[in-house]
Amino acid sequence: MNLAGMTDHTLLKPQATEKDIVALCHQAQEHKFATVCVNPTYVQMAAKILHGTGIGVAAVVGFPLGETFTEAKVMEVFMVKAHGGKEVDMVINIGWAKSGEWDAVERDIVRVVEAAHGCGLIIKVIIETCLLTESEKKTVAEIVKRSGADYIKTSTGFAGGGATVEDVRNLKAWVGENVKVKASGGIRTREFALELVEAGAERLGTSAVLSDTNV
Amino acid sequence: MNLAGMTDHTLLKPQATEKDIVALCHQAQEHKFATVCVNPTYVQMAAKILHGTGIGVAAVVGFPLGETFTEAKVMEVFMVKAHGGKEVDMVINIGWAKSGEWDAVERDIVRVVEAAHGCGLIIKVIIETCLLTESEKKTVAEIVKRSGADYIKTSTGFAGGGATVEDVRNLKAWVGENVKVKASGGIRTREFALELVEAGAERLGTSAVLSDTNV
Amino acid sequence: MNLAGMTDHTLLKPQATEKDIVALCHQAQEHKFATVCVNPTYVQMAAKILHGTGIGVAAVVGFPLGETFTEAKVMEVFMVKAHGGKEVDMVINIGWAKSGEWDAVERDIVRVVEAAHGCGLIIKVIIETCLLTESEKKTVAEIVKRSGADYIKTSTGFAGGGATVEDVRNLKAWVGENVKVKASGGIRTREFALELVEAGAERLGTSAVLSDTNV
Amino acid sequence: MNLAGMTDHTLLKPQATEKDIVALCHQAQEHKFATVCVNPTYVQMAAKILHGTGIGVAAVVGFPLGETFTEAKVMEVFMVKAHGGKEVDMVINIGWAKSGEWDAVERDIVRVVEAAHGCGLIIKVIIETCLLTESEKKTVAEIVKRSGADYIKTSTGFAGGGATVEDVRNLKAWVGENVKVKASGGIRTREFALELVEAGAERLGTSAVLSDTNV
Repeated sequence: MNLAGMTDHTLLKPQATEKDIVALCHQAQEHKFATVCVNPTYVQMAAKILHGTGIGVAAVVGFPLGETFTEAKVMEVFMVKAHGGKEVDMVINIGWAKSGEWDAVERDIVRVVEAAHGCGLIIKVIIETCLLTESEKKTVAEIVKRSGADYIKTSTGFAGGGATVEDVRNLKAWVGENVKVKASGGIRTREFALELVEAGAERLGTSAVLSDTNV
Repeated sequence: MNLAGMTDHTLLKPQATEKDIVALCHQAQEHKFATVCVNPTYVQMAAKILHGTGIGVAAVVGFPLGETFTEAKVMEVFMVKAHGGKEVDMVINIGWAKSGEWDAVERDIVRVVEAAHGCGLIIKVIIETCLLTESEKKTVAEIVKRSGADYIKTSTGFAGGGATVEDVRNLKAWVGENVKVKASGGIRTREFALELVEAGAERLGTSAVLSDTNV
Repeated sequence: MNLAGMTDHTLLKPQATEKDIVALCHQAQEHKFATVCVNPTYVQMAAKILHGTGIGVAAVVGFPLGETFTEAKVMEVFMVKAHGGKEVDMVINIGWAKSGEWDAVERDIVRVVEAAHGCGLIIKVIIETCLLTESEKKTVAEIVKRSGADYIKTSTGFAGGGATVEDVRNLKAWVGENVKVKASGGIRTREFALELVEAGAERLGTSAVLSDTNV
Repeated sequence: MNLAGMTDHTLLKPQATEKDIVALCHQAQEHKFATVCVNPTYVQMAAKILHGTGIGVAAVVGFPLGETFTEAKVMEVFMVKAHGGKEVDMVINIGWAKSGEWDAVERDIVRVVEAAHGCGLIIKVIIETCLLTESEKKTVAEIVKRSGADYIKTSTGFAGGGATVEDVRNLKAWVGENVKVKASGGIRTREFALELVEAGAERLGTSAVLSDTNV
């Protein structure tokens, strides 16, 4: 199983330096990861380092709280593209989800998906599973399905919980064939990663280098 | 000591609901806090509730990681103002600070301060003390002083550490007369709040209601 | 007939100076016009001069060609509000209208109307009648009606033609009770202004001071 | 003289349809023009048609009045890049220039140049010569020189006047070696185009196909 080829090699902690990002990109090349996933202001540097390698740059949008204005998320999307990014991982408006404002949640997602696809970016929608009930997860998954996003993603890694096998399995069932699942948050062993893939994950977000990932 | 009148009553966790924000605003009225401090998408609701009370709405910008594009932070500033906010609390680009890219750190701060002042908003600059060395704190404080911001603020509350008496005292010394200090993060007792004020803080950010705050 | 009270006193030529805007505002006070209508970068100056007078500031958006990105128009809307404006006059995407891309025309209008109403601005939609066929005018009028905009407006004044009595009468019939008509472009006499009002116009845009306008 | 290779084949009138833009692109391929120059919402279509031909897409920004917010111009720049454009032609804030607000004029230009270069776009600065005095032209040229823009450009074509041989000669002298001159507005014959090139123009903007341009 080529786990490396489905891995977003991720470094999002705010204290990460330029040197850390350079190292991240070099590790991505060494292990042939799918992408590096970074904060917006590191997109350009990462894109330059990885130019011509086939490894893309993903950036987070509205991250990690998800409660900035839709228009600010949209602007981040266009700026990620303008600076060389290939993918964006947006966070839904979690507060609106917890308030049951589903129309507002959907409008926010749809606008950001539309912006991303309008300029040729792959988009993943982070729903922050650890803060949602089962019913809320299902409702958001159905919204993500309707939105036409490329991926639904479990976690930011900043809210105290990460991917679980059960969540991945449920999300995959809810979003159907046309949306993929990205598992992220707390993935630190190859064994757990394999379980998540078996449950339906097609992309993994982790800041660890899983041993033998490329075997 | 009127601690209430210097308090930003704060609720920034992503799972906060509309009901939580309503309650926050009512507490602010009851205790006569200076402002409520919320995520951008709750600004308008809070501003409507607090209209005419003399209690302002503050919103966070580039929060809590600080590593989105300056232009996205600027857009958040204008949208906060357009939706009824009175103050913005921006996060510096922490990664650039840790990389020693001080010119970039300063440009980011200056642009956001300029946008805020250009449309009549009070602006606080969050430097996330718990992630910086003493030397870095001093350098950023000098940048904030030059930027003309209204406040330097210690912490987002999302990075594992909050205000300390020593940091407040040092920041106040570094920024001089024209910039005030806001202490935030981990302020849960009236005693600690008073110590921070004595050390030089003129605004406090807390999600707790400090008993007898208004005495 | 109080024509002054329905007049947007307008100065949009690019070479207008700060002194010209000051004079415009003073004329608006003298004649008790409804608003002054200016380019975005003069909104703040005009709003300061007219503060407390009851005379609002209107600004143009996507002006005069209408073929910038919807997101740029939306950002202009929020910045107009943030700098003290009360009304925005947006231009539709004329090229899309001439191409028959009506869904795109509608999406552009709806997003800008939504942004304006979301932050409490009155919005007028300029359709540039002199560039449209009768059938195109009717189709756009129906879109503007559905969008919930406050006004449909005939002309930018930059495309070689302005308001006509026939256009005003038709637009009023097409948009129905809930949308008002603003006539603009080439209104230089009180007589013509009165004819336009009789045909259904409830707001007039002109850079002339129509003699006896306030009688 | 290969005039075609220095020509921006231009179509900016608002009533231009998708078919017109397709035709513009095909003419550009036939004549091997440098770029097509279009309004922002046609960038993506033109970029798709011209993909792989070596002919770039230029888009106008803040066009044609130049008096929208700097931040809106900046957003247009990033969106042009995100949608496949290679060059942007921005308009200066003409009203500020006529008001003698040179610091504001310079800040506006510098911010837009910085945004364009920051994402790899060539940028031309349109100064609208027909609205400026000799002294104003010289002052703006010096600002453009300092800004590091790639080109100074004479005219939008929407203000009643276009390029003159004298203006091109003067601008070239004022901006020096590192900034090129683009002549635009009213260029309809090969003879006049050659005169402008002789005077120092290295790029020409015209909606006409100059006969024998490629000889």
